[in-house]
Amino acid sequence: MTQPAALAVTAKLAWVTLDGVAQLVSRPRIRFDRESGQILSISLASEGDSATPEGELLHDLGHALLLPGMVNAHSHAFQRAIRGATHTLGPHSPSSFWSWRSAMYEVANTLDPEGVYAQTRACFAEMLTRGITCVGEFHYLHHAPDGTRYADPNELSRQVIRAADDVGLRLCLLEVYYARSGAQAKGPLPEQRRFCDGSTDAYLARVDELRALASPMLSVGVAPHSVRAVAADELARLAAHANAHGLPIHAHVSEQPLENQQCQAEHGRTPLQVFADAGCLAGPRAFTAVHAIHVTASDLELLRNQQVCACPTTEADLGDGIVPAAAWREHGATISLGSDSNAVIDLVQEARLLEMHERLRQQARLCLRDDQGRVAPVLLAAATTGGAQALGRPELGRLAVGSPFDALAIDLDHPTLRGVDGQLALDAVFLAGTAEPISQVWVAGRRRR
Amino acid sequence: MTQPAALAVTAKLAWVTLDGVAQLVSRPRIRFDRESGQILSISLASEGDSATPEGELLHDLGHALLLPGMVNAHSHAFQRAIRGATHTLGPHSPSSFWSWRSAMYEVANTLDPEGVYAQTRACFAEMLTRGITCVGEFHYLHHAPDGTRYADPNELSRQVIRAADDVGLRLCLLEVYYARSGAQAKGPLPEQRRFCDGSTDAYLARVDELRALASPMLSVGVAPHSVRAVAADELARLAAHANAHGLPIHAHVSEQPLENQQCQAEHGRTPLQVFADAGCLAGPRAFTAVHAIHVTASDLELLRNQQVCACPTTEADLGDGIVPAAAWREHGATISLGSDSNAVIDLVQEARLLEMHERLRQQARLCLRDDQGRVAPVLLAAATTGGAQALGRPELGRLAVGSPFDALAIDLDHPTLRGVDGQLALDAVFLAGTAEPISQVWVAGRRRR
Repeated sequence: MTQPAALAVTAKLAWVTLDGVAQLVSRPRIRFDRESGQILSISLASEGDSATPEGELLHDLGHALLLPGMVNAHSHAFQRAIRGATHTLGPHSPSSFWSWRSAMYEVANTLDPEGVYAQTRACFAEMLTRGITCVGEFHYLHHAPDGTRYADPNELSRQVIRAADDVGLRLCLLEVYYARSGAQAKGPLPEQRRFCDGSTDAYLARVDELRALASPMLSVGVAPHSVRAVAADELARLAAHANAHGLPIHAHVSEQPLENQQCQAEHGRTPLQVFADAGCLAGPRAFTAVHAIHVTASDLELLRNQQVCACPTTEADLGDGIVPAAAWREHGATISLGSDSNAVIDLVQEARLLEMHERLRQQARLCLRDDQGRVAPVLLAAATTGGAQALGRPELGRLAVGSPFDALAIDLDHPTLRGVDGQLALDAVFLAGTAEPISQVWVAGRRRR
Repeated sequence: MTQPAALAVTAKLAWVTLDGVAQLVSRPRIRFDRESGQILSISLASEGDSATPEGELLHDLGHALLLPGMVNAHSHAFQRAIRGATHTLGPHSPSSFWSWRSAMYEVANTLDPEGVYAQTRACFAEMLTRGITCVGEFHYLHHAPDGTRYADPNELSRQVIRAADDVGLRLCLLEVYYARSGAQAKGPLPEQRRFCDGSTDAYLARVDELRALASPMLSVGVAPHSVRAVAADELARLAAHANAHGLPIHAHVSEQPLENQQCQAEHGRTPLQVFADAGCLAGPRAFTAVHAIHVTASDLELLRNQQVCACPTTEADLGDGIVPAAAWREHGATISLGSDSNAVIDLVQEARLLEMHERLRQQARLCLRDDQGRVAPVLLAAATTGGAQALGRPELGRLAVGSPFDALAIDLDHPTLRGVDGQLALDAVFLAGTAEPISQVWVAGRRRR
């Protein structure tokens, strides 16, 4: 007996996109191709119509809320290794972003290829259990600690790919270009040597080699680290290459005030203006400004139809400040979310804190609302479609015909949801919850948790 | 065969208080009386010395970090009923604290005695699974919705006691006095009628009746709701009674700017100064100012050796603002934590966000540090000993000889802690985690989860 080519899934409630409109529905039947994982149809059959085609399985997830798999738009996987390790003041270490960075560099420089693989795999595995089905890995450990190339210059990128492949997570490898320690510097600090390719040519050769590996599970983006680490002429070179090949561009933007001051001193412009002038915002894919916290009124005008990636738990941990998410939305930017340092791996918390940090700043409620006055769908979108757009994968982050069945199931019997009306479960999770009640995770139609 | 009178517990790691010093130790043997739950001894025997007295059980919790049970210093249990329910903007409802309060009042007025019991029990049960072993319930639903007394005027307080008793949670019943809707009002709004006793005499008679029920599992405190709801002469009357009987006093203080403006208009003083002038800070127990967000430099001078109760998840949800916890500590106040609206029930998150909100405001790291530069012990103390002091139960919140064995075990094999050095587990939980890895909870020596 041959296995049927399609599988159908249902659940008490699901957040699906029908005719382009994302909505909460009861007991839909979502059919997808077993081989490719692609969604073939979504039907809201009344109970009388619910007979399955002969031999086709209907898998009922029961008392659960089915959501699209979440897309994590900004991660440094290896930094999970210092979870919990940077919260004691040392005799010589002031408590700042910059001292945190020193501690992080120390760990970065202990990792050999197997270490990169092991840390990345552990991190990616945790992501998958938390309902993240695609990650944008902002990857900057490229070479040996002293800067020497491995036999394969893409050795460490391949270890990241291997880790994603082994756990079954979709990966957008955001290859980082890093050239110098700051505006005044000709090159990197010793502890930054392994981040550096030495030339844009060498870097782009690596990117092109990785592009050749592209598949539904793997894509590639171009990531000039920041205006600190990349000179303006190099930025222009990277932007031209990315734009010519339709690759997304991601960069750290205005995470710390010092970075803005140094950029003004070097360029007489804000970091975002420097990226814009280099052509980073002119491509077929949206540019993603990661953090974009300390921005000016004119910066806010620059990202219409572009992307901001907020990482609220990391931005709090590192004392960065609050992403002005409401202002970015008003100016036409789309918000995505990242787990960044991976101290916390939970996009539900990132989404909740995006709204809660705005409430703290504005001393008001319901800061990020859709046109029906609802907050939860905005937060869910940041965790799903926002990330998908940022990674140049607009088919992801939604349960829609033609998209892959990347999904998570929230257990409505979880203690935090007991007694909560199912119609309010999305609000209860995204405005009061965490990723904890996620009980099942599917990628490309395969159950991974 | 008779059961031995004592039980000993051990675990890979535990946070215990030895000779008055709280510290992380490996494999202690904590012996407690089976009947009373009181800790008899804590020994750090080397392995050779670890034989148990004949017939005495040694219960090994294994690869776990044992912590004192957490003390939740501020809760409105019934508000769990609106978890997730207040995050859509209605056509006539602006998005503010005050419109949230209207939604909350609506639910408050639907609850009959069994409803109060059911909601409170569900809430307390969730607290217990999250490692909370004692709660200060700031209880203000006293009478029927129209203000009519039940046959027993303490009917609803008894339902709260019943709920705590049924789930096995220690309770400090913070009986609320509520008299008016605001500075200009002679009485309550219609929807506030059930909060009101009508006179301090009637209220204090209820308090005295409840005091007679006191036990190791139940204590009582006096809670003038706020300067909005209580006139100055009544405050003085309540303070005198509380101080005469050694009862803790709790009140909402400066949660919203509007409250401060109205207080200045009525009294020409800040809310905290009004409480001080009424004698609320002069008793044998510390006064607890709940929230204490919008405070002045002279307010900061008032709470030396007194208490501030922060409720970060609720204070974000309601757009209240950030408790200046670092400034309060510098001025000699002790911080405790509350789950307040119970949208989130997780004192680990409250503790983490106490520090993280400060980092966002100060744009710095390690804001709340002990004299060894460590953050995690300060956050743990807020969740344990801080709350115990606020509730007038200084023996709670610590694993020490003479204290009851109220404890929680954190599973060091939880996915969020996998690969984290045990010595950093406390930091990983309190600075990057949630209550999720709590796998066992004990109250008075009895396992409750």
